[in-house]
Amino acid sequence: MNLLTVGSVAFDAIETPFGKTDKIVGGAGTFITLAASYFNDDVNIVSVIGDDFPAGFLAKMNERGINTEGIQIRKGEKTFFWSGRYYNDMNSRDTLDTQLNVLENFDPVVPEHYKNADYLMLGNLTPAVQAQVIDQLPNRPKLIAMDTMNFWMDIALEDLKKVIARVDLLTINDEEARQLSGEYSLRKAARSILEMGPRYLIIKKGEHGALLFDKDRIFFAPALPLEEVFDPTGAGDTFAGGLMGYIAATDDTSFDNIKRGIIIGSALASFTCEKFGTERIGELSREDIDARIREFIDLAAFNILVPQ
Amino acid sequence: MNLLTVGSVAFDAIETPFGKTDKIVGGAGTFITLAASYFNDDVNIVSVIGDDFPAGFLAKMNERGINTEGIQIRKGEKTFFWSGRYYNDMNSRDTLDTQLNVLENFDPVVPEHYKNADYLMLGNLTPAVQAQVIDQLPNRPKLIAMDTMNFWMDIALEDLKKVIARVDLLTINDEEARQLSGEYSLRKAARSILEMGPRYLIIKKGEHGALLFDKDRIFFAPALPLEEVFDPTGAGDTFAGGLMGYIAATDDTSFDNIKRGIIIGSALASFTCEKFGTERIGELSREDIDARIREFIDLAAFNILVPQ
Repeated sequence: MNLLTVGSVAFDAIETPFGKTDKIVGGAGTFITLAASYFNDDVNIVSVIGDDFPAGFLAKMNERGINTEGIQIRKGEKTFFWSGRYYNDMNSRDTLDTQLNVLENFDPVVPEHYKNADYLMLGNLTPAVQAQVIDQLPNRPKLIAMDTMNFWMDIALEDLKKVIARVDLLTINDEEARQLSGEYSLRKAARSILEMGPRYLIIKKGEHGALLFDKDRIFFAPALPLEEVFDPTGAGDTFAGGLMGYIAATDDTSFDNIKRGIIIGSALASFTCEKFGTERIGELSREDIDARIREFIDLAAFNILVPQ
Repeated sequence: MNLLTVGSVAFDAIETPFGKTDKIVGGAGTFITLAASYFNDDVNIVSVIGDDFPAGFLAKMNERGINTEGIQIRKGEKTFFWSGRYYNDMNSRDTLDTQLNVLENFDPVVPEHYKNADYLMLGNLTPAVQAQVIDQLPNRPKLIAMDTMNFWMDIALEDLKKVIARVDLLTINDEEARQLSGEYSLRKAARSILEMGPRYLIIKKGEHGALLFDKDRIFFAPALPLEEVFDPTGAGDTFAGGLMGYIAATDDTSFDNIKRGIIIGSALASFTCEKFGTERIGELSREDIDARIREFIDLAAFNILVPQ
């Protein structure tokens, strides 16, 4: 089944305790589609870039089977740019610079032949832009997933809640779940957020794994303890891309399959953390991925006999 | 197999966002033995209390099959007292008062018929006192487990390292693992700590679960997201008690059985968080425990087919 994604295709400049980069390619849409491309050969992206963006990178995405026809290229304009510095714990970071550029007036246009989307992944963007993408689809996808962040809770909460009400699966981190719900207990936060509309909620906790909730069930996905988190930029997007690429490929939106998707997304995200930017997620082999998934299986497996 | 424990039997006074207590019974040794008693009917404790300690509580421990003969009762002296206040996140707390009292000059005496200990759990105490208990055992137990905290890393690091070198299993939290090893990455921290002597390291992460390491393997145990963490005091000790009670009862120190022990310890610890002090861990039924363990099984279970 095909997967439609909307998300930024951008430049990042990153400083970590391990080094710093010049402008490299990043962006939610980039990580999502690269990750999804390992499971799905029918991945379409809607985004916007300036004419400063390297055509070679688009060609690389095409080689991975990603259809980039929905990426608008604005002549004479510049690509979205974000620059940040991570602290030693690699969980907290400072934004050093944000230049919206082409994202400032992004008017997403879904190409005609993308419109029969089976699955839709709304990457972190202005909620109004996320809504515009849903609006353009004549038939509701089988599953709409959405990522967002605290920034939109601060400045566009009402718009955000309207989009949340229209999606099936929301991914946010633990602090954002607490902010959005006003509840400290993640169990209570999840209940409150599920009442806003989504059928599934995934709370991402970085090195502490992720939690999946539906109205009745909870799943706790582990994170692989890494030797070194080199650069976590894009890990959340890679997670979402791996998850949705897998869900679309298997065409199964059951709780059990979302669990599998989370493990696969977590495995891919662990690769993204190993190098700067998209370097690692752009170069994986099938064997790399299978070996990493097996590590997750070993990591979480236990057996106890309990009387039923 | 029998389990010998050394640990404080004490009074706590606790303030949380949900309420506050007067002096109630707490202490590492109390939580450890109560938890262990659900799996093992041969639990012996070495500790010290003042004559202000309620005899009724000792009787309650005896009813649960805990042998309290090794608890010295000091006439005219007062029981160890700790008072603390938890913040909203229930992870950070301030110590309001610490009165060492009988613990100030605690000289642990292992009764003769405790000395053939099959398993030994060293609760969090002065490292020198932990060492004195090992010294009194004529034969090495099959597994010696030890809990400690950052306080001893700050003021008695050399003594602490000497005890760590003598144990098989160490339990500490993530910040303590980082402090003890000087490594931020928990994977590197674990390698460094395992080189200090223990065969197993358990890194406790509270609401984020726990990690088990040996030289070659990692296991990530989930924590059950609770509606409300009412009072986490004693959760780490309950975890250790459930773990070691189970290991001693099953007489199996393999990695796979330690994993089971961690799930059981985590299940029991989740009960401790539900009420103040020992109230919940003192009143469990077999059915309560089995149902909670099943929740953990459901929480962590997933299946993915990956080519081997």
